Amino acid sequence: MNAGGGDMNDILRVGIAGLGTVGAAVVRLLEAQSADLAARTGKKIMVTGVSARDPARERGIDLSGATWFATPKELAVSENIDLFVELIGGDEGAARESVEAALNSGKSVVTANKALLARHGIALARLAEQHGAALAFEASVAGGIPIVKTLREGLAGNRIERVYGILNGTCNYILSRMELEGLSFAECLAEAQKLGYAEADPTFDIGGFDTAHKLAILASLAFGVKLDAEAISIEGVQDISLADLHAADELGYRVKLLGVAQRTSHGVEQRVHPTMVPLSSSIAQVMGVTNAVTVDADAVSELTLVGPGAGGMATASAVVADIADIARGIRSAPFGLPVDHLAPAQKSPMQRHEGGYYIRLAVRNQIGAAAAIATRMAEHEISLESIVQRRARDGDDSVAPVVLVTYATTEASVRQALAQIVKDGHVADKPQVIRIERE
Amino acid sequence: MNAGGGDMNDILRVGIAGLGTVGAAVVRLLEAQSADLAARTGKKIMVTGVSARDPARERGIDLSGATWFATPKELAVSENIDLFVELIGGDEGAARESVEAALNSGKSVVTANKALLARHGIALARLAEQHGAALAFEASVAGGIPIVKTLREGLAGNRIERVYGILNGTCNYILSRMELEGLSFAECLAEAQKLGYAEADPTFDIGGFDTAHKLAILASLAFGVKLDAEAISIEGVQDISLADLHAADELGYRVKLLGVAQRTSHGVEQRVHPTMVPLSSSIAQVMGVTNAVTVDADAVSELTLVGPGAGGMATASAVVADIADIARGIRSAPFGLPVDHLAPAQKSPMQRHEGGYYIRLAVRNQIGAAAAIATRMAEHEISLESIVQRRARDGDDSVAPVVLVTYATTEASVRQALAQIVKDGHVADKPQVIRIERE
Repeated sequence: MNAGGGDMNDILRVGIAGLGTVGAAVVRLLEAQSADLAARTGKKIMVTGVSARDPARERGIDLSGATWFATPKELAVSENIDLFVELIGGDEGAARESVEAALNSGKSVVTANKALLARHGIALARLAEQHGAALAFEASVAGGIPIVKTLREGLAGNRIERVYGILNGTCNYILSRMELEGLSFAECLAEAQKLGYAEADPTFDIGGFDTAHKLAILASLAFGVKLDAEAISIEGVQDISLADLHAADELGYRVKLLGVAQRTSHGVEQRVHPTMVPLSSSIAQVMGVTNAVTVDADAVSELTLVGPGAGGMATASAVVADIADIARGIRSAPFGLPVDHLAPAQKSPMQRHEGGYYIRLAVRNQIGAAAAIATRMAEHEISLESIVQRRARDGDDSVAPVVLVTYATTEASVRQALAQIVKDGHVADKPQVIRIERE
Repeated sequence: MNAGGGDMNDILRVGIAGLGTVGAAVVRLLEAQSADLAARTGKKIMVTGVSARDPARERGIDLSGATWFATPKELAVSENIDLFVELIGGDEGAARESVEAALNSGKSVVTANKALLARHGIALARLAEQHGAALAFEASVAGGIPIVKTLREGLAGNRIERVYGILNGTCNYILSRMELEGLSFAECLAEAQKLGYAEADPTFDIGGFDTAHKLAILASLAFGVKLDAEAISIEGVQDISLADLHAADELGYRVKLLGVAQRTSHGVEQRVHPTMVPLSSSIAQVMGVTNAVTVDADAVSELTLVGPGAGGMATASAVVADIADIARGIRSAPFGLPVDHLAPAQKSPMQRHEGGYYIRLAVRNQIGAAAAIATRMAEHEISLESIVQRRARDGDDSVAPVVLVTYATTEASVRQALAQIVKDGHVADKPQVIRIERE
């Protein structure tokens, strides 16, 4: 069968803008898998055009069959290519202009650019629809894990209830190292920077913004909402301490930075924050820079995908899979549903979030403090699953760490109860609050 | 975009043969997701024909829009349907006849029937090619886990080195219960039978044959070989004892029944057997009836999918995803590559298998026994990673359990060394050998 609808002499001419680690790896994979891809897709896939900031740089790849273009946009509109691969990065400028130009000229686009999609994904999907072109972006979320295809195609028969995952390798690396080595957040961040897992300015990763971009894409695919990074509540991992990791372990949990999108009675809730997950869950086992995504859905119950979230080859694997789909003639709606069927995403206030909570308090050693705290929780109708009070480690008897774990309650109740407890003068420090995500 | 190429008034008429748990669940999902599926695929998917042994049975589903057919074959060739869904089971008879008839009449087929595919998959794929029809079978391997799509499409840019997994929920349930509850194999099997996880005659599951059928499908997709259950070396879990599970745990392993297909210097090795996997691996965490598949490949490195391996709804989820792909007009080659590109599968003799080995011996308490055993291993150039000797639990001092873990060696060396050791008269019982599978 000629799966792509053409004969084996058909050629798909690919233009690649951006020849960094990922771009070079794409060229290498297309070359290495050339015969196999031709047999699988019915088309010979050839890189016929490229564009990069420094054409002279030695990349160790064969570009003899490709024409160089001065700008991504010139490549995007060239008659020389059928498919435009955008690996430039950035949510404006050359990336946006060239993708728009390619779609406007009826060319399909493959991109790994989550920032571009988080900001302009819906407008670009509309352009793709108008021109009958594909817009594919498997590489934009969780690197080599085929979660986009899984949500868009593999779970088409399901009503999805929740999708959540470890979507940022930098944060997971830091949390894993803290726990395994007993190091502080700052020490692990410095180490991650030295190893190239974290940027010089790490805010985008550790502040949860990178996770939010990816979550916006997953939420759109899973729930048919317009992708909108503004609809996401975001907290980073910068305030997680070793004390939290130790307490989590004692209670049977592990701390992960999760992106979570979930159907609730008040709409689709999208949030990024440090989360306690049960030690026995699949997602708790994921350590280091590895990513993982779990989908809860009515038919499939629970499905978890674990794999590399970054790296040139893993990302290139996803890019090439998208190219192969397009070569086979597949033209799914970019976000599963046509744009006009996507509902607007609405920001669900975290105050309405319902779930269990881990609360760590530095309680002043005063008679009646514990009773007063328990009373405030009860006043806000918060049931406690466990209370652990320890003698302070540093021998300071005036303050004792107390860890509370609540049954499901609302964020508003927790915040109000804690405000009262602080006002009562029983705690010496800002309460630490980490949401619990159950399987 | 009308992803399916037609307009929204297009209808895909589905015929379902077999209305057991899975068939009824498919009807329910198609109904529940009707609007969503129409928007996603561009086609209204309707069940217009059905066939089942007992039409009168109450199934709690609405079949008012469907015509009943006396036999699956009559349904398969009916002008009333565009797509035939085979959920009858069995590798001959009605299942085979009806699938062949549907493909011969140019209709696409969706099936969950691993036995049919393991036996006739290549002939059926050829029929599908000849008639330009799709043959889809996501549900045939690992239930709701989209591993077929992942291998066929999601990893298209990869050269796959190994695919392995827990593909039989019955075996994994039994091994998990043995370990967690300290029960014998026989006790856990009886329990599994009571819960409906195991058949009255459990041979097909615990003997590894069900896993082999699924592995044959995965190997074909991963390595482009013709699917051939005869090319698989098969051992079941019936001889695994609590002593093995305890020893595994002490050594940092867990015992799982794995199906493994792997590229080696002497071809694609396909094998099903109890396996020691590192306790820290993703696959070791998978307990109970859950399934998991791990793929090692050059670009993506390691990817693991974990989810429900059986159950009406999970299986139906996979069937509906296939139906949706066909509705969108996707016609990939069933096994990724056109049949003429698939290489013959050759049985790789287990004697040539290379890997680590766990060996448990009941050693007679004779002076020099340990030295003699170690010498025999050395004579066969087997390096030992660890040796653990314990006093026998039952107080019988005449025999002591000894556990050896080898570094990578060949199966032939291990078998020859053990034959010598048995001949030397140092062991009181048949040696237990379990292969180790490293990440």
